[in-house]
Amino acid sequence: MLEDILKQVQKGTLSIMEAKDQLATFENLGFAKVDHHRKKRQGFPEVVYGEGKTAEQIISITTALRARNNQVMVTRISEEKAAVVQQACPEFTYNEVARILYWKAEKNPKVNTQGYIAVVAAGTSDLRVAEEAAVTAEIMGSTVHRIYDVGVAGIHRLLSHAEEIQKATVSVVVAGMEGALPSVVGGLVSHPVIAVPTSVGYGANFNGLSALLTMLNSCASGISVVNIDNGFGGGYNAVLIHQLAQKGERNEDTLL
Amino acid sequence: MLEDILKQVQKGTLSIMEAKDQLATFENLGFAKVDHHRKKRQGFPEVVYGEGKTAEQIISITTALRARNNQVMVTRISEEKAAVVQQACPEFTYNEVARILYWKAEKNPKVNTQGYIAVVAAGTSDLRVAEEAAVTAEIMGSTVHRIYDVGVAGIHRLLSHAEEIQKATVSVVVAGMEGALPSVVGGLVSHPVIAVPTSVGYGANFNGLSALLTMLNSCASGISVVNIDNGFGGGYNAVLIHQLAQKGERNEDTLL
Amino acid sequence: MLEDILKQVQKGTLSIMEAKDQLATFENLGFAKVDHHRKKRQGFPEVVYGEGKTAEQIISITTALRARNNQVMVTRISEEKAAVVQQACPEFTYNEVARILYWKAEKNPKVNTQGYIAVVAAGTSDLRVAEEAAVTAEIMGSTVHRIYDVGVAGIHRLLSHAEEIQKATVSVVVAGMEGALPSVVGGLVSHPVIAVPTSVGYGANFNGLSALLTMLNSCASGISVVNIDNGFGGGYNAVLIHQLAQKGERNEDTLL
Amino acid sequence: MLEDILKQVQKGTLSIMEAKDQLATFENLGFAKVDHHRKKRQGFPEVVYGEGKTAEQIISITTALRARNNQVMVTRISEEKAAVVQQACPEFTYNEVARILYWKAEKNPKVNTQGYIAVVAAGTSDLRVAEEAAVTAEIMGSTVHRIYDVGVAGIHRLLSHAEEIQKATVSVVVAGMEGALPSVVGGLVSHPVIAVPTSVGYGANFNGLSALLTMLNSCASGISVVNIDNGFGGGYNAVLIHQLAQKGERNEDTLL
Amino acid sequence: MLEDILKQVQKGTLSIMEAKDQLATFENLGFAKVDHHRKKRQGFPEVVYGEGKTAEQIISITTALRARNNQVMVTRISEEKAAVVQQACPEFTYNEVARILYWKAEKNPKVNTQGYIAVVAAGTSDLRVAEEAAVTAEIMGSTVHRIYDVGVAGIHRLLSHAEEIQKATVSVVVAGMEGALPSVVGGLVSHPVIAVPTSVGYGANFNGLSALLTMLNSCASGISVVNIDNGFGGGYNAVLIHQLAQKGERNEDTLL
Amino acid sequence: MLEDILKQVQKGTLSIMEAKDQLATFENLGFAKVDHHRKKRQGFPEVVYGEGKTAEQIISITTALRARNNQVMVTRISEEKAAVVQQACPEFTYNEVARILYWKAEKNPKVNTQGYIAVVAAGTSDLRVAEEAAVTAEIMGSTVHRIYDVGVAGIHRLLSHAEEIQKATVSVVVAGMEGALPSVVGGLVSHPVIAVPTSVGYGANFNGLSALLTMLNSCASGISVVNIDNGFGGGYNAVLIHQLAQKGERNEDTLL
Amino acid sequence: MLEDILKQVQKGTLSIMEAKDQLATFENLGFAKVDHHRKKRQGFPEVVYGEGKTAEQIISITTALRARNNQVMVTRISEEKAAVVQQACPEFTYNEVARILYWKAEKNPKVNTQGYIAVVAAGTSDLRVAEEAAVTAEIMGSTVHRIYDVGVAGIHRLLSHAEEIQKATVSVVVAGMEGALPSVVGGLVSHPVIAVPTSVGYGANFNGLSALLTMLNSCASGISVVNIDNGFGGGYNAVLIHQLAQKGERNEDTLL
Amino acid sequence: MLEDILKQVQKGTLSIMEAKDQLATFENLGFAKVDHHRKKRQGFPEVVYGEGKTAEQIISITTALRARNNQVMVTRISEEKAAVVQQACPEFTYNEVARILYWKAEKNPKVNTQGYIAVVAAGTSDLRVAEEAAVTAEIMGSTVHRIYDVGVAGIHRLLSHAEEIQKATVSVVVAGMEGALPSVVGGLVSHPVIAVPTSVGYGANFNGLSALLTMLNSCASGISVVNIDNGFGGGYNAVLIHQLAQKGERNEDTLL
Repeated sequence: MLEDILKQVQKGTLSIMEAKDQLATFENLGFAKVDHHRKKRQGFPEVVYGEGKTAEQIISITTALRARNNQVMVTRISEEKAAVVQQACPEFTYNEVARILYWKAEKNPKVNTQGYIAVVAAGTSDLRVAEEAAVTAEIMGSTVHRIYDVGVAGIHRLLSHAEEIQKATVSVVVAGMEGALPSVVGGLVSHPVIAVPTSVGYGANFNGLSALLTMLNSCASGISVVNIDNGFGGGYNAVLIHQLAQKGERNEDTLL
Repeated sequence: MLEDILKQVQKGTLSIMEAKDQLATFENLGFAKVDHHRKKRQGFPEVVYGEGKTAEQIISITTALRARNNQVMVTRISEEKAAVVQQACPEFTYNEVARILYWKAEKNPKVNTQGYIAVVAAGTSDLRVAEEAAVTAEIMGSTVHRIYDVGVAGIHRLLSHAEEIQKATVSVVVAGMEGALPSVVGGLVSHPVIAVPTSVGYGANFNGLSALLTMLNSCASGISVVNIDNGFGGGYNAVLIHQLAQKGERNEDTLL
Repeated sequence: MLEDILKQVQKGTLSIMEAKDQLATFENLGFAKVDHHRKKRQGFPEVVYGEGKTAEQIISITTALRARNNQVMVTRISEEKAAVVQQACPEFTYNEVARILYWKAEKNPKVNTQGYIAVVAAGTSDLRVAEEAAVTAEIMGSTVHRIYDVGVAGIHRLLSHAEEIQKATVSVVVAGMEGALPSVVGGLVSHPVIAVPTSVGYGANFNGLSALLTMLNSCASGISVVNIDNGFGGGYNAVLIHQLAQKGERNEDTLL
Repeated sequence: MLEDILKQVQKGTLSIMEAKDQLATFENLGFAKVDHHRKKRQGFPEVVYGEGKTAEQIISITTALRARNNQVMVTRISEEKAAVVQQACPEFTYNEVARILYWKAEKNPKVNTQGYIAVVAAGTSDLRVAEEAAVTAEIMGSTVHRIYDVGVAGIHRLLSHAEEIQKATVSVVVAGMEGALPSVVGGLVSHPVIAVPTSVGYGANFNGLSALLTMLNSCASGISVVNIDNGFGGGYNAVLIHQLAQKGERNEDTLL
Repeated sequence: MLEDILKQVQKGTLSIMEAKDQLATFENLGFAKVDHHRKKRQGFPEVVYGEGKTAEQIISITTALRARNNQVMVTRISEEKAAVVQQACPEFTYNEVARILYWKAEKNPKVNTQGYIAVVAAGTSDLRVAEEAAVTAEIMGSTVHRIYDVGVAGIHRLLSHAEEIQKATVSVVVAGMEGALPSVVGGLVSHPVIAVPTSVGYGANFNGLSALLTMLNSCASGISVVNIDNGFGGGYNAVLIHQLAQKGERNEDTLL
Repeated sequence: MLEDILKQVQKGTLSIMEAKDQLATFENLGFAKVDHHRKKRQGFPEVVYGEGKTAEQIISITTALRARNNQVMVTRISEEKAAVVQQACPEFTYNEVARILYWKAEKNPKVNTQGYIAVVAAGTSDLRVAEEAAVTAEIMGSTVHRIYDVGVAGIHRLLSHAEEIQKATVSVVVAGMEGALPSVVGGLVSHPVIAVPTSVGYGANFNGLSALLTMLNSCASGISVVNIDNGFGGGYNAVLIHQLAQKGERNEDTLL
Repeated sequence: MLEDILKQVQKGTLSIMEAKDQLATFENLGFAKVDHHRKKRQGFPEVVYGEGKTAEQIISITTALRARNNQVMVTRISEEKAAVVQQACPEFTYNEVARILYWKAEKNPKVNTQGYIAVVAAGTSDLRVAEEAAVTAEIMGSTVHRIYDVGVAGIHRLLSHAEEIQKATVSVVVAGMEGALPSVVGGLVSHPVIAVPTSVGYGANFNGLSALLTMLNSCASGISVVNIDNGFGGGYNAVLIHQLAQKGERNEDTLL
Repeated sequence: MLEDILKQVQKGTLSIMEAKDQLATFENLGFAKVDHHRKKRQGFPEVVYGEGKTAEQIISITTALRARNNQVMVTRISEEKAAVVQQACPEFTYNEVARILYWKAEKNPKVNTQGYIAVVAAGTSDLRVAEEAAVTAEIMGSTVHRIYDVGVAGIHRLLSHAEEIQKATVSVVVAGMEGALPSVVGGLVSHPVIAVPTSVGYGANFNGLSALLTMLNSCASGISVVNIDNGFGGGYNAVLIHQLAQKGERNEDTLL
């Protein structure tokens, strides 16, 4: 594109003033291009963080995004707020456990056709965060296996699912309280583990600090951590990795 | 004893002044009696915390304690300091891994003849603390089974020792870094677990805070926690419980 | 059981496919067995943490648990939620101070016939947590002596109960604010002390952190600590120890 | 393998006693198998954490590991300690910036032939941690592009390397002080970013806490975080992802 | 003024008693003078912190302040409370995004006629704090350029405004979550940057602590920080600097 | 003094210029007067904080102070540094446990002739801080009763000294680890208690934070707290109170 | 009293059984005596902490206390709760700013006839805590001078009250936000200063932690600190000191 | 410059390939230009953070910087390291209190000819940080007035310098321990105050956290804060402001 502009300047079909304008645009597009590529290749939706935004703000943002995207996704949006948005935007679907409101341009085919993401959760109280991860990954086109209620205090429950977890391409492991689950999972698998601490617990759990520190200090290799209760982040990271693992995906010419 | 004093006052064989003196003593003995009973029944040694004391101070304290005890034990004492103390007190034995210097009046028979304490440790770096627990328990008369290097990141190592841990009367579980081991052990056993966090680790381990919080927040029941690196406390608590579990021990007349 | 399977394979009465299935089951039962043994020997109820669960969820969980247990216990359940559950499950009893809802198959005989657990509490504001400990222990079959309102700022109140506490098999000591009570009790008794910090207090108490740190740093030996406000954990640990102390309980053949 | 054992029992070529022994082994191998697969497929070395271990301990551990591995790697080992180990194990190579001592059975061919890992570092003081990540990745068979000294306070330095970073398969971004670099990189790329906070800084950096929190709170998607100064963890995670991205790697039959 | 008093004493037109009174007053005025000068020279309004004050208290304070000031400004006042105050004081204007209620004696001419303050904000959630800064600065007489929604995760958005920010006299940079924006801005400009962390975020953001630490640890020079969510402080500091930069302002005789 | 100046101006014996100078001085003296009164009335020494100062700096400061004081006191000074200072200032005395170097113009008579300060310490490791308090109080003219090694874990030791502590005018209570001692003492006495937390302990003691929080949260009334390890502050506060309690001391005319 | 009992035993007018009973009582009374003395000498009311107690509980406690005390005081009680209590106990007075409900047997004469306590507060938002201190002190019989709204950011306001503060017997200094006021007051006076941090502020004030740390680290001598928002503790400590300062109060025979 | 390139393309004197190269350079220069302008206009030296760098590294960096700058400055460099550097670079000057090593191309004329920066410090222990600020400012061309040892505990010392501070263009206020000085100074002046917390203190000062929080929470307006011990940052910010205040400095055409 830069070359085109220069050629036109050379040919005289573009004035210097116009060229300067276009180069300014180009510079910005240079970075916007990244976003463009991302969406095209990965089918990634535009994501709106719903907390602290009014239904009206969300309506106007999502309407704008719909105009130039195939998918739009709003996270951390309450049932009430979602209902208001849906009145204005009836084509949006709401998942009440994951608290995600989303829309896809058409019934997208499954993007990631090989393998699956294992979303593993310690307790039933971690469900919301785990579902935020799982639904995020599904909207983004991945197959998800849910393995829930397998906290380390009943290690046999986890072990009876060991093979299913081991065969996943990548795992998202969600745990509150002592947050020990990612360490055990990390020792069982040979793929990357995204650990998501939750604020579930009381007392010296300090709103998830306990689980967060546990996960950061894991003696198992291959674990990385996202913010407390950040199910979306866990799911998003897993999809990035899942997509890289698609066969033939990494042709240099199609990349980026 | 109170009755004796009063009877002598009644009989006139004790002046009021003398009675007052003896009652004052009695009051204090009332509490000292506890210590006396403890030692007699449990064979508990007197314990000196060695850190921050000079070899000279330790020599004078242990000499005094030896005069009225069957056992004396110094914890957190370095090899160098122990060597100085041993020159003055050659009858003391030093355990360099546990950093414990101790003496027993005679070759005590094993006090706790039934069952054993399992001392379970996550990593080789937790060895010092684990040994402090184990040696403390042994000096106090318990049998100890050491199950080391069974961190949760390689859960199969732990599971291959599950039966040995399950058969113990009580477990002391020592772990640094993420400190998840007690949660897993707690889920495998039906006896009390004393969890000992260690300061082993780096970064967001914050000198053992990570492991401490993990253990306090354990979702497994039956776990209680002592201070960071407090192997002695772990061993001591375990022996208290182990002794309670000795058959026929709880005759009301001999208790306390 | 493993032997049985192998024998049937040997005899040809079990196909290899079936044997593989059964061995997979066996592996899991190997750990489930632990839970089974626990319940049988200790009469331990299944415990549901009620906070963050809806009445509906609790009804479905407790109904399921009742089908295969002699006791079911729900902790941290509000009066309102308990009332809803009781409409569906009228055989459940609610203790409003301890916030525990529970059911026992029949009027269980007292399991632990010797000795008692002392539940010691510093202030009247610590009552809820202390009662959670006491009621937990009672449901699990232990005799409990309550010694309340004996905070260290009026040491004579505590001392006038010293003998009652000393004669207990194990103590649960509950305190908020400065949390100093376990240290003083720990110095008076020769049995294990389970310390329960509460979030009672204000300002630099930091929601129980102050009491928690105090207890972890206690200079008295024989103290271990559970999470802030974890009365259930305190009671549960005490019962584990109390049961170990029952005379003749530790016949190797009946253990586990 | 389970099937083999059962078949032999069926055929009578294996006694029930021997079968039980082998199944016990099998159970453990069930998990050990994971490690075996991992090494074979990924060429992952066995890793020893060198800090807190004596040269003697390291020599005995690495000697044992060499006997059954193609690669052995010791992290966090000082130059002095490494020199002692090298006297006993002259076939080991030491990288003094990364503080890694390692050995490979033969000159391994590059395992990951497509793409590369970008190791991006903010300041020259973050070099040690960045090199730990880079050298780890190289030993594990990945190509690494180092993009150093591109802290956010001079954003143009980073931008002039934008394309090189964008073309990587995965990035490891290392930063101390305010730790803002991963957020900016995360906004430029569409691949996963592993963020490594370092303890570089002073004052309110609180030994890396500042950078850690920054990275966990990043508003850019696709970022996950490892422990403070954990360059090894950053490199290891990146290689896991890099290997998943190898073309044709995910044939179900060869996986795990 | 001191000289006047002394002269009158010398002349006998002032009694020693009266002089003592006046000197006492003078001493206090010595400091009050500062406030007086400030208002006169800088047109600084008196500022009332509205949080935790009732509408009645605010009415009485603002009425008193209006009597002896040209401007009065109330920060952190809710829409409801402001409405009540406005009923009593209809000449006050309320800005609902900035939550500022203010009054100026007359339509003040723009005080700072040269240059402008750039108020730069990372996300839309930081708007309230950014507006508090911007409106504060405008009320105090500065021109403000708002550059919003330019968080570092989309660095090109920020860069497309680089020139506008660089040409400002001083910048106020507002950011929550990871708080990295001031570091990037600080590297782009050569003027002072006032960084304002916000409490926007969740989990390990710890109510703004994360952004605060990031900003304090910035590797860019020329950045100083105010309290979390302190938009007023950010705006106020910027105006102080903006005024210093007015040409010819610093005549010694008019200063202070 | 102000009146004098004004009278001289009135009389013409002082020029306005000279009066202005003297008034400037007066203003400062107005506050310096406080210090002057304090020293005269209370015999308070000038205090130098020795930590972080070189022997040379201390020599020059103490020499200057000696010229205009009856007493000089240097706290937190090591034995080595004190020896260097004493070579230059042989009239100074060094207390090596309290790490205080001091000098008094003449053998001061005991200033506070009634009552005494009880310095109460929990463990032998708290000795240094306790002695800093005790020696400070003695240098300042108070009688001190030392009651050491009376930690709450052996409550009878404390109780056997209860009367001695109760009869004191004020207590300084020094404790590390869990820091519970002030609460118990506070419950026994009816006079003010100055609590001094020490950094003695390990693990979750966090350099004295544990003891500090305990003391701030004490449920006993009448306790106030100084900084961690601040024995000097404890002693100084106690002397201030002790002096107020001296009979007839509070004649309005001599006060201040 | 001990002597009396012994004499009666000697005389035979008291049986040994009765003597044992009385001695048991005596032991407890030995400590209760303290409370008795305190109330008699100092006119100290019994104090009930109202927070977390129901109106019913407070009614029953205060009724019981009224039966054996001349004064009863309830702190931290809301206006609503106080109204309920007053319906049952109409003789109680409620102070709504200090949130204290109290009763005195008769119109007590001022107990402390000499001097006064200065209660100094930084901002109007600190009023509640300051009033809690002032009203506590007044109920306990001290004269209080209130010096409010003298925060350090307008140092001349404080200085214009310097003399009034300096003439007090003891000061209670209340401050939130940066909490710097006690340091400045401490440098102006020669009497003890009780510092009370408040939770007033926002952002990095962390609920009073900021002010608390400031006060503990004060470079002024003679300052001790109570818990955050603990106005009662500040007032109580001040009265203890004020009473000690009463002329002639410290006759050995009347003390304690 | 962009126009030049385009014109040459238009004229055909520049090939498209060359133009692309130059535009790539231009893009980077776009940002580098900032640094260039900064140095030219403000006389700002290049600054090297010396901590954690070897003398050799510093020599090579400073040599490179000297080649293209008029000034070079190394902060946080020890006396020993500086001596080594000076052997290689004898034209550098070392200030041992500020620990700054610097070089200026020629004897630069004072850049900022009007007004001065007041560097105000609380205690003698804060000297190092204060000098780092002062020397930084002087090297950068500002006049500095040092006002040291004016901590708030002796408020008259500060007040006797009030006028000198008030007349400054901007103040840098350095304080450790409770860090209250900026609040008091901020209330006295009408110019911007840069607050620098120091780590001076002990116990609950937590390495400067106490002073940092105090300053962030200051109730005085016009205060902004830099990192703990960051004297350089304080001085640098002050110079930025000082230069803005130079008369006639802000001609639009010369700016940037």
